[in-house]
Amino acid sequence: MSAVVPPGGLRVRIVGTGLIGASLGMALSRKGFQVSLDDPSPTAAALARDFGAGVLAGDTVGVPDVVVVAAPPDVVATVVARELSQWPHAVVTDAASVKGAVLRALQDKGVDLSRYVGSHPMAGRERSGVVAAQVDLFEGRSWVVAPGPQASAGAIDVVRQIAAAAGSAVLVMTPDEHDAAVAAVSHVPQIAASLVASRLRDLPSGAVALSGQGIRDVTRIAASDPGMWTQILAGNAPAVRGVLESLAEELDTVLVALRHLESEPDGGSVGARAVLAKTVADGNAGQARIPGKHGAAPTTYAAVVVVVPDEPGALGRLLRDVGEAGVNMEDLHLEHGVGQPFGLAELSVLPDAFQPLMTALTSLGWRVHQ
Amino acid sequence: MSAVVPPGGLRVRIVGTGLIGASLGMALSRKGFQVSLDDPSPTAAALARDFGAGVLAGDTVGVPDVVVVAAPPDVVATVVARELSQWPHAVVTDAASVKGAVLRALQDKGVDLSRYVGSHPMAGRERSGVVAAQVDLFEGRSWVVAPGPQASAGAIDVVRQIAAAAGSAVLVMTPDEHDAAVAAVSHVPQIAASLVASRLRDLPSGAVALSGQGIRDVTRIAASDPGMWTQILAGNAPAVRGVLESLAEELDTVLVALRHLESEPDGGSVGARAVLAKTVADGNAGQARIPGKHGAAPTTYAAVVVVVPDEPGALGRLLRDVGEAGVNMEDLHLEHGVGQPFGLAELSVLPDAFQPLMTALTSLGWRVHQ
Repeated sequence: MSAVVPPGGLRVRIVGTGLIGASLGMALSRKGFQVSLDDPSPTAAALARDFGAGVLAGDTVGVPDVVVVAAPPDVVATVVARELSQWPHAVVTDAASVKGAVLRALQDKGVDLSRYVGSHPMAGRERSGVVAAQVDLFEGRSWVVAPGPQASAGAIDVVRQIAAAAGSAVLVMTPDEHDAAVAAVSHVPQIAASLVASRLRDLPSGAVALSGQGIRDVTRIAASDPGMWTQILAGNAPAVRGVLESLAEELDTVLVALRHLESEPDGGSVGARAVLAKTVADGNAGQARIPGKHGAAPTTYAAVVVVVPDEPGALGRLLRDVGEAGVNMEDLHLEHGVGQPFGLAELSVLPDAFQPLMTALTSLGWRVHQ
Repeated sequence: MSAVVPPGGLRVRIVGTGLIGASLGMALSRKGFQVSLDDPSPTAAALARDFGAGVLAGDTVGVPDVVVVAAPPDVVATVVARELSQWPHAVVTDAASVKGAVLRALQDKGVDLSRYVGSHPMAGRERSGVVAAQVDLFEGRSWVVAPGPQASAGAIDVVRQIAAAAGSAVLVMTPDEHDAAVAAVSHVPQIAASLVASRLRDLPSGAVALSGQGIRDVTRIAASDPGMWTQILAGNAPAVRGVLESLAEELDTVLVALRHLESEPDGGSVGARAVLAKTVADGNAGQARIPGKHGAAPTTYAAVVVVVPDEPGALGRLLRDVGEAGVNMEDLHLEHGVGQPFGLAELSVLPDAFQPLMTALTSLGWRVHQ
C-alpha cells in the first residue's frame, strides 16, 4: 500500500474514459493530480486526453498510487482484479453503481482485498461517453465510499481524498448498506415510475390528456435507458427484490381494501378506508425524511404562485424581479396550462420572505396567488 | 329544462363555497354571470361573497338556470338530488373528482336525470377553503364534462358553457371513461408515490441522504392529504382497483425476474434480464404519450444545463439572459447540490434554439453543459 503523499502528488490511473472516467480525470487534473488514462478504445482515451482529462497511459506518469476503474458494471470485477495484480502497491477503486456484487466477485477470485475500496460517485447523466464529460460533474453530488471488511484504513483514506478532490460530499458505508440505500432511493423508484407510466400505453388519447403535474413528476425518470437500467437492476437484484417485496405487500393490502369498498361502497368499510388513509399517511412520513436543499433537514417553504405569460423572457423578468426584491428562491416548479397560452410558476421561499415577495410582485403587476 | 339564454344572463347557484365553489363564483361573476352562493356554514358563504364570488342565496338573484354543487364527495349525491327537486327547471352539475359513483347513487334515488350533468374541474390545490380561492383557478386547466346516458343535450351544453366561461379546456367523456382516466393518470400515481415514499420511513439517515432528483420527483405528491385521498380513492374504488391490479401483475413479473437473477447472477438469466428491459421500455412508451406544453403532442427538447450560484437573483439573471437571447424556454428543472453552495438549472428548449443558447450563455460567462 502506498505511503500517504500530499494530494497534489498522487498519481491516478483511470481505466475507462467514458462520462465518469473522463470527468474525473478533468476534475483531478485541475486540482494538480497526475492523471493517466487507459481505455479499451484508443479513440476514447485520446478524446479524453484532448478534453484535458490527463495523459495517455503510454506516456506514463509513473507507477500509480491509485487506480480508478470506471468500466461498465459487467466487467468491473475483472478489471479491478487485473489492476490489483498489475500494480501491487496501488489502491484500486471502482465507480460502479452497485457494490456488493463487485466485492463478492472479487472475493471469489481470491485476490488481496486490503487495497480495494469500492466507491460510487452519484453523478449519472442521461447522456454517456467522453463527449458528455464535465469537469464539475461531481461537484455538489454525493460520493459513497464503500469499503469491504478487508480494506485497510489507509486505502479507504486515499479513496476519500479522490472523492473530496472531485468536489463531492463523501459518505462512508458498507457495500450492503450502499446497495440497500440505492435500492430504496433510486432503483425501486425507477421501477415504480416505469410501471405507472406503462399504464398509459393503452389508454385512450382523451384520457391521457387529463395528465397533470402529478403524473408528470412521478413518471419523469420513466424516460430512462432500458439497457443501462437492466444492468443496474440485475447487479443489485437482492436488495431491489427486498424493497420491492415490501412495496408489493402493501400494494396487496391496498388492493384488498379497494375490493372491499367496491363490494360495499357505503357502509361497513371503515377498516378499508383506514388502510387507504394509512397508506397515504405513511407516504407523508417517508417523503418528509428526504433532505432539503444542500443536504439540510427538510424545511417547510411558503409557495407563491405566479401567472407567467408564454413569451420569450417572461420567466426571466419574473425571476429578476424576485432577485431584485432581495428574495432567494429555494425551489421553482413550472406548470404548463392546457390549451392556454401561459403557465404557472410556483416559487418556494422561506416563510419570512413570503409576504415581502407577494407585495413586491403584486406592485410590479404580476398576477400572484398564495 | 331552461331555455338557452345568453351566457351573461345565466343565473348560477353555487352550493358549497370552499376552494372550488368560491373560485368558480369569482370567475363567473367577472364574466357577468349572476351568481348566488349557499353553504351549510353561513360564515363560509359570507366570506365567499366578500371575496366577490356572488351574492348570498338569501339576497336571491331569482330562480337559478344552473346549480353547481361543490360539496365534499361523500355528500354530493344527496345535495344534487335535493337541488334537482328544489329547482325543477334548473340544470344541476357537481364538481366531485369521481363521477360514476355519484351517478349510480342518483340513479338509485330515482330522480329525473335529464337535467343532471356531472363534471370535474381538474384544478385542485394543496390548500382548501374559501381563503385559498382564486378567480383564475380554472384557467388553463382541463374541465371534464361527464354526462350520464339520461342527460339532455341542452343540459350538457349549459355545463360546457360554465366550464368554458371559467377559462377551462372542456373535455366531454362518459362517467366511466372519466373514472378510468383519473385512475390511471392521478389515483394510481398517487398510490405509487405513497408506497415508494413509505419505503424511506425505516431507512437509516445515511441512506436517505443519497436521495437524488429522481426520488424527489417520484414522491413529490406523496405529501398529499390522507383524508382527502381516502375519499377520492374510496369513491373510485372499481377503476383504481383495475389499474392497480395490472400494475401489481407486472410488479410480480419483475419480482420473479429479480429472484431468478439473485439465484443465478451470472448466467442463464437472459429471460430475466429481458423482463427488466421490457419493464423500463414499456415505461418509456407510456411516458412518451403524456402531452407536452399546452396540450400539444410531446416534443423532444434539447437540454442545456447551467451552474447557478446560490445567491439572490442568480436564477433571475440567468433567465433574463435566456430571454434576451430571444429563446423561449419550454421547461425548467432545478437540481440542488449536496453540501455545495449552488445548484444546476436544466433548461429545455426547442432543438433549433439549442446552439444559439449555448453560445449566448457561454459568452456571458455562464458555466454551461449539454
